[in-house]
Amino acid sequence: MNRADDRPLTRVDDHAHMWRPEDARARFRGGLSGPTAGCAAGHTQANLVSVPADWAYDTLLFCQRNPKPCPVLDVTDAGSFTTVLADGADLRTDLPRYRVWQDGELVDEPTDVLAHWREDLVSFLIGCSFTFEWALVEAGVPIRHLEHGRNVPMYVTGRQCRPAGRLHGPMVVSMRPVPPQHLGAAIRESGLLPAVHGSPVHCGDPSALGIEDLSRPDFGDPVDAEPDDIPVFWACGVTPQAAVTASRPPFAITHAPGQMFITDARDEQYRVG
Amino acid sequence: MNRADDRPLTRVDDHAHMWRPEDARARFRGGLSGPTAGCAAGHTQANLVSVPADWAYDTLLFCQRNPKPCPVLDVTDAGSFTTVLADGADLRTDLPRYRVWQDGELVDEPTDVLAHWREDLVSFLIGCSFTFEWALVEAGVPIRHLEHGRNVPMYVTGRQCRPAGRLHGPMVVSMRPVPPQHLGAAIRESGLLPAVHGSPVHCGDPSALGIEDLSRPDFGDPVDAEPDDIPVFWACGVTPQAAVTASRPPFAITHAPGQMFITDARDEQYRVG
Repeated sequence: MNRADDRPLTRVDDHAHMWRPEDARARFRGGLSGPTAGCAAGHTQANLVSVPADWAYDTLLFCQRNPKPCPVLDVTDAGSFTTVLADGADLRTDLPRYRVWQDGELVDEPTDVLAHWREDLVSFLIGCSFTFEWALVEAGVPIRHLEHGRNVPMYVTGRQCRPAGRLHGPMVVSMRPVPPQHLGAAIRESGLLPAVHGSPVHCGDPSALGIEDLSRPDFGDPVDAEPDDIPVFWACGVTPQAAVTASRPPFAITHAPGQMFITDARDEQYRVG
Repeated sequence: MNRADDRPLTRVDDHAHMWRPEDARARFRGGLSGPTAGCAAGHTQANLVSVPADWAYDTLLFCQRNPKPCPVLDVTDAGSFTTVLADGADLRTDLPRYRVWQDGELVDEPTDVLAHWREDLVSFLIGCSFTFEWALVEAGVPIRHLEHGRNVPMYVTGRQCRPAGRLHGPMVVSMRPVPPQHLGAAIRESGLLPAVHGSPVHCGDPSALGIEDLSRPDFGDPVDAEPDDIPVFWACGVTPQAAVTASRPPFAITHAPGQMFITDARDEQYRVG
């Protein structure tokens, strides 16, 4: 066992950004849980949604029709718990925490889903905005929730996604407060990464998205903004969970918001231009 | 009837770049056929593949797994022949020419598919490299096949796509000869448009893609290159037709290569960064 494996199982580890993806997955497989913001710097993180094969087409079409919240990085064959994005990974165990849904109701939040797994599940790995945070940091944009060691705040908006078959629901967004002088870089750098939500969907007044109170996110932690910071909203991969809640498929497994699957893929490979 | 409607039905019209998308579609609905390279400047063109609903998931997954040749712009609901990308358009009549496939065999090449339409067809509109040609022209990159009033040459490569369910087949590419001093701009400008195939998949030696003779394209017209030009290969939306040939679904309708569906969408809306 190497030294990194002996670290205490803290929620946010000061050294988590240096973890290799396979070590991060091994820790989560071993029972560690917590938000993955800042983990395994430069490696692409992914949202998970697994649905019965009968719902796979509606899910894939929902993603195609809503590419900003739901950019698909990989889709497994039915029953498979492996992915081309992470060598040797097991999607049933390698995320920090899962959510299990029956008829749109949250029924369990385990750290693995071995007991819930079904042979007819098709798993979708969807780009995560944690991926572009490193590009923002490198461009000099401060990321407040990383500075404070917290999960990013996420909000269910009043904006409806384009439906697909039986799936419908509102768009979920993540929010980062950005100083005005860094707004251009934040928009530009994230815009070059469309596979992980791309450019923001909104900047400024939260009420334009139907968000009433920034201090009360629907998922994740509230974040302290500096006085001049502008709230910047990016489409979020928790959107499929909002669709599960709204559309009530008989069964689904997702990641817990902010507790992502860490892939071997390099953020750079999703950069365009 | 406006003046443009009185033009003779030529294969490549000197003024076709000035057509409005709805006028172009009306002409094709009226029976005009021919390559659409250069038509309706600045408006996004799309490849068509329509398959029975039973094959829709495999097709959508094939596209997701092969985003460079198959970037999906829209998917219709089963039986629908309209699209959000073109107001008032009818996908059964508004393309210049179609191909009709049974068990992977080409059985008809009509100018409309009213007689072939089925209620269970799901239609996929897939980005077309004609879209980024205007960005290349604006960046000073000469487009040889436009200069010579021809269709772009397309080649079936030796590179296999990632299969999806019952669908498999080789990648098809389009080729444009580019002068060396314009190569950077050609790669950069197309790279900012990932929804219409993005950056090239290869530059230079055609044999690296398994292409034996550039003067004998599998689809479209051969193009005359200048002595210093470098052949540049982009993934092509004819790839689903190669998958139809290889995978033999019971029925499919596609566009005829180079004879695209012209949408109301502006190329600019697909540009990232």
